[in-house]
Amino acid sequence: MKLSDIAKALRAELVGDGAIDIRRVVHPDDARDAGDLALALSKEARSATGGQRAGAVLLPADAPPPEDGRGVLLYKGNERVALAVLTALFDPGPQREAGIHATAVVAPDAALGAGVAVGPHAVVGRGAALGEGTSVMANAVIGAGAVVGRGCLIHPGAVIGERVRLGDRVIVHANAVVGADGFSFIPVRLPDGSPGAEGKPARIHSLGTVVVGDDVEIGAATTIDRATIRATRIGNGTKIDNQVQIGHNTIVGEACLICGQAGIAGSVTLGDRVIIAAGSGLSDHVRVGDDAVVMAMSGVPGVVPAGETYAGIPSVPLHVWRERYLYLGRLKALNQRVEALTARLAALEKSAKDG
Amino acid sequence: MKLSDIAKALRAELVGDGAIDIRRVVHPDDARDAGDLALALSKEARSATGGQRAGAVLLPADAPPPEDGRGVLLYKGNERVALAVLTALFDPGPQREAGIHATAVVAPDAALGAGVAVGPHAVVGRGAALGEGTSVMANAVIGAGAVVGRGCLIHPGAVIGERVRLGDRVIVHANAVVGADGFSFIPVRLPDGSPGAEGKPARIHSLGTVVVGDDVEIGAATTIDRATIRATRIGNGTKIDNQVQIGHNTIVGEACLICGQAGIAGSVTLGDRVIIAAGSGLSDHVRVGDDAVVMAMSGVPGVVPAGETYAGIPSVPLHVWRERYLYLGRLKALNQRVEALTARLAALEKSAKDG
Amino acid sequence: MKLSDIAKALRAELVGDGAIDIRRVVHPDDARDAGDLALALSKEARSATGGQRAGAVLLPADAPPPEDGRGVLLYKGNERVALAVLTALFDPGPQREAGIHATAVVAPDAALGAGVAVGPHAVVGRGAALGEGTSVMANAVIGAGAVVGRGCLIHPGAVIGERVRLGDRVIVHANAVVGADGFSFIPVRLPDGSPGAEGKPARIHSLGTVVVGDDVEIGAATTIDRATIRATRIGNGTKIDNQVQIGHNTIVGEACLICGQAGIAGSVTLGDRVIIAAGSGLSDHVRVGDDAVVMAMSGVPGVVPAGETYAGIPSVPLHVWRERYLYLGRLKALNQRVEALTARLAALEKSAKDG
Repeated sequence: MKLSDIAKALRAELVGDGAIDIRRVVHPDDARDAGDLALALSKEARSATGGQRAGAVLLPADAPPPEDGRGVLLYKGNERVALAVLTALFDPGPQREAGIHATAVVAPDAALGAGVAVGPHAVVGRGAALGEGTSVMANAVIGAGAVVGRGCLIHPGAVIGERVRLGDRVIVHANAVVGADGFSFIPVRLPDGSPGAEGKPARIHSLGTVVVGDDVEIGAATTIDRATIRATRIGNGTKIDNQVQIGHNTIVGEACLICGQAGIAGSVTLGDRVIIAAGSGLSDHVRVGDDAVVMAMSGVPGVVPAGETYAGIPSVPLHVWRERYLYLGRLKALNQRVEALTARLAALEKSAKDG
Repeated sequence: MKLSDIAKALRAELVGDGAIDIRRVVHPDDARDAGDLALALSKEARSATGGQRAGAVLLPADAPPPEDGRGVLLYKGNERVALAVLTALFDPGPQREAGIHATAVVAPDAALGAGVAVGPHAVVGRGAALGEGTSVMANAVIGAGAVVGRGCLIHPGAVIGERVRLGDRVIVHANAVVGADGFSFIPVRLPDGSPGAEGKPARIHSLGTVVVGDDVEIGAATTIDRATIRATRIGNGTKIDNQVQIGHNTIVGEACLICGQAGIAGSVTLGDRVIIAAGSGLSDHVRVGDDAVVMAMSGVPGVVPAGETYAGIPSVPLHVWRERYLYLGRLKALNQRVEALTARLAALEKSAKDG
Repeated sequence: MKLSDIAKALRAELVGDGAIDIRRVVHPDDARDAGDLALALSKEARSATGGQRAGAVLLPADAPPPEDGRGVLLYKGNERVALAVLTALFDPGPQREAGIHATAVVAPDAALGAGVAVGPHAVVGRGAALGEGTSVMANAVIGAGAVVGRGCLIHPGAVIGERVRLGDRVIVHANAVVGADGFSFIPVRLPDGSPGAEGKPARIHSLGTVVVGDDVEIGAATTIDRATIRATRIGNGTKIDNQVQIGHNTIVGEACLICGQAGIAGSVTLGDRVIIAAGSGLSDHVRVGDDAVVMAMSGVPGVVPAGETYAGIPSVPLHVWRERYLYLGRLKALNQRVEALTARLAALEKSAKDG
């Protein structure tokens, strides 16, 4: 790709030869030759010395450009936005061959769109449908009756359960499971101590499914359970990290970010653009409003109102959490102060009595 | 299934035509035709308007039955119990074909009971045994010498390690791993700062196995480690959710419920009917008595006595945790109060001195 | 193996017949015959009665040896060290057949060292390399261009992503994923409330890879993400438990122990010999120095200095955490004390006013 085209995509100012052919974007220390564009937006990267080998360099707009004849892109925006643009330009995607691999097992009645790729040992069940351009990689399993949209990428070992529906351009990472049964049992002894199911926990079966919108990403080893009788839903554009658990009947809105190892129980409702930071847990029936944020490693037992940021176990508004944490750190001083007050009061009492 | 048979299974009162043939149980809004039984036990479901399309409706005993000629079941019990009964009646189970799929690799000396199904690309190792009616689904692996009981269901991608033993009617969900090696190392530097193993952590190998009882359910992406020289054990009727980790040598009792993302370390002992709520962690050698409950996102460092409920990191009895949490919320007020006392005391001291 | 050879490996004192042929190391209660060496270093094991059946017994140096003609090993060291030595001696390793299984799919241009074993339905992508003596077990996937060193063991269902590099003697447990894409998005609404990406979160693609050193162990269902443009790195001798998440760009040092369900976000740096206990979370860009310890279920937002032990959410030095926890437990008493002070002060004020 020509350096001038990259400049255009980044809306960066081009200094030098725009005809340079760029084949990789690299950290300056990893630069090998003139086909490399060295990313030097951060101070750390600019102090790296390897960048001289690169054919071009990306610098902040206010940095002094090198005068050694290399191509230079001067960029005013946010570094992460630049990374989004550049990595999208240079991502070749995983290696996949069009067509059905000889070892794949595809049910005769499965409906396959144009350009579908099914990798070695992948399995596509009866009545399943794969949209145009979708890839199912090695050892992945698409259950009977599942519907996968167009342009999806199902990584190795992922399991899409029976009757699950995925929208278009969905990415499911390796060993994720979409459509496991919900964990729904009546215990032998109820939480209030009264007897529940007899002998062993009574199972509520999962007859429902999972419906995933367009442009959703589901992380490696993430698990999403099917609903009891309706559908667990993930809205358009929502991105889910690795090892996230999403329980049965839960409804996740659009454009949410759910970070690694977060756990969302059953019958939870998340609004749109919600951010659930890593390691957090949401109890059954929790409701989180649009644009709300749950900080990392928090435990949410109830409602998080729209636009609010919550933290802590159990979670409270962030400013409340901060205040509590501040006073917690001053507990020793408070104890010492009460100690001193006690002594002063005793002295006063004594003098009053003596006086 | 006839509506009258469903009434009998639910012990519900039947109003109207018991001969209606029911093919699905649905939320009222999902009802399509006379073959649907609409579940309207909750207020929310009763306010849904779609139920008119259903051939029959399930209502609480005290609800006014519709007088539109549809079949009506009036039900007095708990909604979740009704769900357990109905979903069991209408669960067709996953699609599986009896017999060994042409692409499955089954060791010649594996012992297969009557009616065993082994799906595409599944692997059954040397000397393994599968009981009558057991299904091993696509891409699952049964290790050499493993013994799987009767009527088990091993979902796609699940891995049952070598020599592991599962009882009857065990369900292992997709991509779960039963029988990984225990995480057991002597560190290079011991916790007290003294030197440990030389150069790299010394490995304690896992020669033992995992023994799982009857009617156990193991969630998707859950991992259970084999013991050092004996067996990690899961008791009859225990249900384990997704992404649970159970360490080596641990003994889990009967009819326990272990919720999503809970982590149970090594050499832990759980009694019977224990509930470990989601996201909780139990340290090595912890003991939890019968009927005890560990609340969500708690960290248990020691003993939880039988019948007790514990919460917090580190966990304490629930009433202690509640009290602490209450006082934590009042810390600001307490600080203000001490401030006021200090001022009043100073005034008194001044007046005593002046007086 | 001769009892005398075991004595030598353990540096234990041999009493009795060193020529006894030992075939298993067992807990005394599991002993069956003269081929068993019963491990009775702990009090609990010594009180077990089954040991009589074993042909030999391992006892602490100061225990009275049985005088029944069995072989006896008297051992002075740490029990866990003995377990490391003995279990290594008696671990046969998983069953694997040399060579490429007929159902494995190995790209014609993959480079396979001598003695490589590739199990049923395993997949080895284009241009991948497997070092001498490495085993890829059933249903595991080695991505295109991945390089796996010598003597590695890739358990069933594990996925090694494209271009990922593993050193020698690396063990990857079942269903682990090395080389998933990083979770790196620009949200639609930035944490400060200002608008971010348009419409849906903007994706930063993962062009980088994962580089794993020698003698590393990676637990079942653990996930390690590839870097944005460089490499996520795991140092030599580091051991990672089950269900650990390691984010993109993170650098883990040598001989670390990372326990179950720990979550390490992106761009984190861990020094050497670090211990991250179970269930802990480290935020983006956290730095942990050599020999530091993070206690279980802690949340680390910033720096942990070398050699320090941190605990809590958010984590602080262990002694600070302990102090805070102590005062937290005394909050009720402190409130009562302030109550009493208030009453005494009021009495004094009244008497001063009256006086």
